[in-house]
Amino acid sequence: MEDKKNKSALSEINGVNQPESISNTVAKNIQQFRRKQPSATELIDSICSGDKIALSRAITLIESTNVNHLTKANEVIQGCLPFANKSVRIGITGVPGVGKSTFIEAFGKHLTSLGKKVAVLAVDPSSSISNGSILGDKTRMEELVKDENAFIRPSASGDSLGGVARKTRESIILCEACGFDTIIIETVGVGQSETAVHSMVDFFLLLKIAGAGDELQGIKRGIMEMADTIVINKADGDNISKAKLAKTEFNRALHLFPAKKSGWVPKVTTCSAITKEGIDDVWQIISAYLEMAKANVYFQVKRKEQSQFWMLETINEQLKTRFYSHPDIIPLLESNKKAVQNNVISPFAAAQILLEHYYK
Amino acid sequence: MEDKKNKSALSEINGVNQPESISNTVAKNIQQFRRKQPSATELIDSICSGDKIALSRAITLIESTNVNHLTKANEVIQGCLPFANKSVRIGITGVPGVGKSTFIEAFGKHLTSLGKKVAVLAVDPSSSISNGSILGDKTRMEELVKDENAFIRPSASGDSLGGVARKTRESIILCEACGFDTIIIETVGVGQSETAVHSMVDFFLLLKIAGAGDELQGIKRGIMEMADTIVINKADGDNISKAKLAKTEFNRALHLFPAKKSGWVPKVTTCSAITKEGIDDVWQIISAYLEMAKANVYFQVKRKEQSQFWMLETINEQLKTRFYSHPDIIPLLESNKKAVQNNVISPFAAAQILLEHYYK
Repeated sequence: MEDKKNKSALSEINGVNQPESISNTVAKNIQQFRRKQPSATELIDSICSGDKIALSRAITLIESTNVNHLTKANEVIQGCLPFANKSVRIGITGVPGVGKSTFIEAFGKHLTSLGKKVAVLAVDPSSSISNGSILGDKTRMEELVKDENAFIRPSASGDSLGGVARKTRESIILCEACGFDTIIIETVGVGQSETAVHSMVDFFLLLKIAGAGDELQGIKRGIMEMADTIVINKADGDNISKAKLAKTEFNRALHLFPAKKSGWVPKVTTCSAITKEGIDDVWQIISAYLEMAKANVYFQVKRKEQSQFWMLETINEQLKTRFYSHPDIIPLLESNKKAVQNNVISPFAAAQILLEHYYK
Repeated sequence: MEDKKNKSALSEINGVNQPESISNTVAKNIQQFRRKQPSATELIDSICSGDKIALSRAITLIESTNVNHLTKANEVIQGCLPFANKSVRIGITGVPGVGKSTFIEAFGKHLTSLGKKVAVLAVDPSSSISNGSILGDKTRMEELVKDENAFIRPSASGDSLGGVARKTRESIILCEACGFDTIIIETVGVGQSETAVHSMVDFFLLLKIAGAGDELQGIKRGIMEMADTIVINKADGDNISKAKLAKTEFNRALHLFPAKKSGWVPKVTTCSAITKEGIDDVWQIISAYLEMAKANVYFQVKRKEQSQFWMLETINEQLKTRFYSHPDIIPLLESNKKAVQNNVISPFAAAQILLEHYYK
């Protein structure tokens, strides 16, 4: 140890002074620029001209809990709305360890090489605890993050899935107005987050890996049925034959499910985000889906249904939030829950008591 | 044609006169008895002493839309509650044509032969249109309906699944107080009715038939994952080998699903409701489940969770019903739905407008 004052390996060394070569005036200007809050109209104009910094700022407004920010955020969303809706929205899920970040990096780079503009968002309600566990560490996608035609944004934080999902759903509108034609929504699959993501995308991709029996594990209930494609990642080196076997198994399993409303038959494919083998196949599958779903109008119908779903979902969430957070209801609910569990009162009689109290 | 007045085969012949051998006094007494409405206390006492006629009458009260009946029904339910909760509740689903009635008849008769008291209820929201499509025709279970230790009740009618499900859930309480130790809830699987039934039973049975590829059809999304057992019916005659093949296929598919919270590994079995082959195996599977689930306390925990679920579900349903049936909301919702679908307003902004209007 050079510095004798630092006894412990954990102690900090002295801070580095501001290098003299940086002009104070320039530093002040930068600070000034950062501090200046553009108006809603300015933000809309900048977003629609493809300005990624304005896009970031507007998403920050959406994520803010400050009431003034919310009003402004709503103005921006409303202003961007006419320019949205022109993209393909792809949901990607998979348990930790399947290599989601590496896959999205490889897949995203492939898309930008095809001339596409790719925005990557995330829905991860757990990030409020872990401070953004997915996409939080942008260095995991260091190629994509440097790409002029890519925009990466970690999951909004929030205590409820509903809140996080709403913020992501609104961010999609802004990304599309900003000219991003391919929106990727990543989710880790905490609880119901896959369902939320499924209801905001056109195409749902389940990422898996092959391995000693683990193709049978980690599939949340209902997820496999939601998938439009199952992609078996890490199909490289010694894994190739295992991945092929997994592909056969999943193909067999998918055939046991009922036909999809879209008319689409889910596809299973293998790829390696490392060797890039099979990455283009994933895009070919999505392209084939889009061609089919746009031709049979399912694509357009589903988008309208999804918009309506989110309106109703927001209403239903709010109705519940207001009821369950009502100061009179909280203690009454607790006592009735216990009574119901102990079979002292029927669930329906208990519900009646609570409702009468609420509406009186 | 004997009667020349009736030109068409569809016309009616003259009605039959009252036979003279029936005494007018006796007929009047019967009518009098039928007209007399027992009090809530009388009904509770009769039900708890095992009176099936009182049970029927109380369920009719539950199903009534008359407000006075509802108050009385709630009294009866409350009075029966301490004597309920002592049974096994089995949900049975399967698409039309799998032989649900024949299976329940054979299975129910087998259970009563083992000394059990069997109540068969149904959840079929479509019955309000078809006037009770399942269990409506009791002659389809003519052996079971004559059985002293069996009670069969067709589905309540109602315009919403929520309403029908609530009525069935309450009827379970009365059946249990009446001494029925095995409650079978049948559903045809219209929309979400399986989910509703799943959340009111201890064990969920999916009935299937084998056949040229049809083991792959008619499985509603998510149903296979709910099943604690898949029973392949009609495994008789030429069908036996096909049924065995289907068993293998389903076993393979079930292994692809994640482990159940109960710790139970779903079983696939074959049976014939005609030859009675395999009917006891179904009961053995259920018994094994019960032994396991009671030992690991999952059974008890699940029942408490289900009671709480129904309380919250009833509240949530009511909150929505009140909102969506509000005279000011109906036209406003319609116009906002259109605006959202046409991308004129964001789903969240539209929701906000509606909620502000409702709470102002």
